[in-house]
Amino acid sequence: MRTQVVIVGGGPSGLLLSQLLLKSGIESIVLERKTKDYVLSRIRAGILEQGMLDLMREAGVGARMDAEGFVHDGTLIAANNETFRIDFVQRTGTPVMVYGQTEVTRDLYEAREKAGGKIVFNTDGVVIHDAKTDAPYVTYMVDGTEHRIDCDFVAGCDGFHGVSRKTIPDSVRSEYEKIYPFGWLGVLSETPPVDDELIYANSPRGFALCSMRNANLSRYYVQCPLTDHVDDWTDAAFWDELKRRIPEEAADKLITGPTIEKSIAPLRSFVTEPMQWGRLFLCGDAAHIVPPTGAKGLNTAASDIHYLYHALKEHYLEGSDEGIDGYSQKALQRIWKAERFSWWMTNLLHRFPDQSDFDLKMQQAEIAFLRDSDAAQTVMAENYVGLPY
Amino acid sequence: MRTQVVIVGGGPSGLLLSQLLLKSGIESIVLERKTKDYVLSRIRAGILEQGMLDLMREAGVGARMDAEGFVHDGTLIAANNETFRIDFVQRTGTPVMVYGQTEVTRDLYEAREKAGGKIVFNTDGVVIHDAKTDAPYVTYMVDGTEHRIDCDFVAGCDGFHGVSRKTIPDSVRSEYEKIYPFGWLGVLSETPPVDDELIYANSPRGFALCSMRNANLSRYYVQCPLTDHVDDWTDAAFWDELKRRIPEEAADKLITGPTIEKSIAPLRSFVTEPMQWGRLFLCGDAAHIVPPTGAKGLNTAASDIHYLYHALKEHYLEGSDEGIDGYSQKALQRIWKAERFSWWMTNLLHRFPDQSDFDLKMQQAEIAFLRDSDAAQTVMAENYVGLPY
Repeated sequence: MRTQVVIVGGGPSGLLLSQLLLKSGIESIVLERKTKDYVLSRIRAGILEQGMLDLMREAGVGARMDAEGFVHDGTLIAANNETFRIDFVQRTGTPVMVYGQTEVTRDLYEAREKAGGKIVFNTDGVVIHDAKTDAPYVTYMVDGTEHRIDCDFVAGCDGFHGVSRKTIPDSVRSEYEKIYPFGWLGVLSETPPVDDELIYANSPRGFALCSMRNANLSRYYVQCPLTDHVDDWTDAAFWDELKRRIPEEAADKLITGPTIEKSIAPLRSFVTEPMQWGRLFLCGDAAHIVPPTGAKGLNTAASDIHYLYHALKEHYLEGSDEGIDGYSQKALQRIWKAERFSWWMTNLLHRFPDQSDFDLKMQQAEIAFLRDSDAAQTVMAENYVGLPY
Repeated sequence: MRTQVVIVGGGPSGLLLSQLLLKSGIESIVLERKTKDYVLSRIRAGILEQGMLDLMREAGVGARMDAEGFVHDGTLIAANNETFRIDFVQRTGTPVMVYGQTEVTRDLYEAREKAGGKIVFNTDGVVIHDAKTDAPYVTYMVDGTEHRIDCDFVAGCDGFHGVSRKTIPDSVRSEYEKIYPFGWLGVLSETPPVDDELIYANSPRGFALCSMRNANLSRYYVQCPLTDHVDDWTDAAFWDELKRRIPEEAADKLITGPTIEKSIAPLRSFVTEPMQWGRLFLCGDAAHIVPPTGAKGLNTAASDIHYLYHALKEHYLEGSDEGIDGYSQKALQRIWKAERFSWWMTNLLHRFPDQSDFDLKMQQAEIAFLRDSDAAQTVMAENYVGLPY
């Protein structure tokens, strides 16, 4: 078998890339380790930056998103017994959109299938060969049979635990990591969201976030110790804890109900350099992880897809390898800024076990400065809605 | 003896307050532990915010400062092999002024003497009595004789090691502190400054700062381990190290010469709360210390003097105690923001012994973001030139 681009990983990054390439007449095959149902059952981020929205539209899969997504013009920050709002549109001219990653993935699968795009599910033992040559190929197993696809390029969209990053030799890779000393206990609940906008709360009991997927699907989080087990948290205990951490007026109007999903996720910052090795390109979680504060996970993946898509287009349609050669540097430049923002917002809003009284005062002073300074709000807003590509 | 306000400490804060009070017809006596010559020999900060300039002018001591001070419209930041400029005037409409603290103090002494203001030097064993009553008094020794001054208020302008802060009982005080794991080795040299503006440099060898006092008096600093001794640093070693840390084009044009002062200062963040206890008010270093990155030391003292001066004026001239009662809260609000800025700038520009590779990347990303974002430059500039009182 032969194609132009093999895309390892059938999550939103890989699907988006394949769909974009299709629009430019570039062939690709997507290899996915799991089933479509499994991929669609993963619950992930829900805040999309303008750049991601534009890519979805460019890929021809923006219709449902534009019809059903919720445009958010700002967000609320609660701390030190007061709540203030940062108005993204006032500060930057740009809103964000609430549209769950599950929905993004569903739309992409639908478009992919309609276009007859090739996705191979249940692939096992994927190996990327000869990435440093002009003739790379990928082998994999399905139901015990080995397959081989020859190609021009390989896009590694297979997440943190995927094979793509590990294909780059240790001697070439530099990895940067920070593990945060807490997790997020998150629930999904078929209840109306407590507010039209998100509430990021820094409380003495720890961070809390009121988010949402749609008008009747709320997503709430509380910071918890990494030693907690999800089974120890009853629904009642979760709602009680959430109410203690969010502003009183929000707690008073919070509508609770049975949770339909409950999980604890650790918080991690991670970046690998370079994001390219010969004809293999890493995209999204395969190359970097952000803590969820700031909602940059899917959006940083979109940023990589943007650069890689344009690089491949330049290669195939314009005969220029400038984008290909500069991919890692260009992608990383923006990634590090998104990493910085996610790290900053995590530091700003969480309670840390080793935080000194002075550290806590710095956090409070930073929040007070953010409340009072137009320029500080613009800095926050321009990062939140997404820095320019 | 009796006066309206006893000012403990004859440094710039105390002198500025006494001079301002005089302009409003409020009597004060300044008590200084050392001699005038000693006070004038202390080498300190050199960058004055607009608020400090306005206070000097209001106190009638701004003439020489306005004639001889150097207006700086911006500053240079050097890191990762590039240099960029932050234009304070473009970002905020406001410049800063380079005018040494020694000169400020000299002008204040001169004005104080001309006005016949009372300063008692060589005071020993100062004790502040009955600060929680309406009739406080201060006792002290000069040449073995005890003196007593009855007063309405006591302003504690006697620095970090002074008696004023310690007069507030431990049970009332909360202290917040951060000690940084390095010092600044600073030299004063009768050479022309390497640049018209300051250069803040983050180099792999550590922080360096090119500052100045006037056209033929340069002030340079390099970050050094706290274990270093000033005697181990020859002039030649200092200049060599400085050149390695600043941009090449600056190093090439640096004019070196014998240093006329050389010292190592530790870096510390410190705040005590509250800044008021009955009729005793803490001002400047008596209540808070900032690391010198960001040049906020004298300027935070000026901010306290501003609030206290207006509070006392309201008390004596308008019969309102609102300013008096709200002094601590109002002063601290601004102090914590200045502490935050000094801490942020220190974190941004120094190398830390325990800095992980990830931490270093965050520092680089923050500098890159500062280089690229108008809003981030505005945030930096509005803090550097001084937040509004």
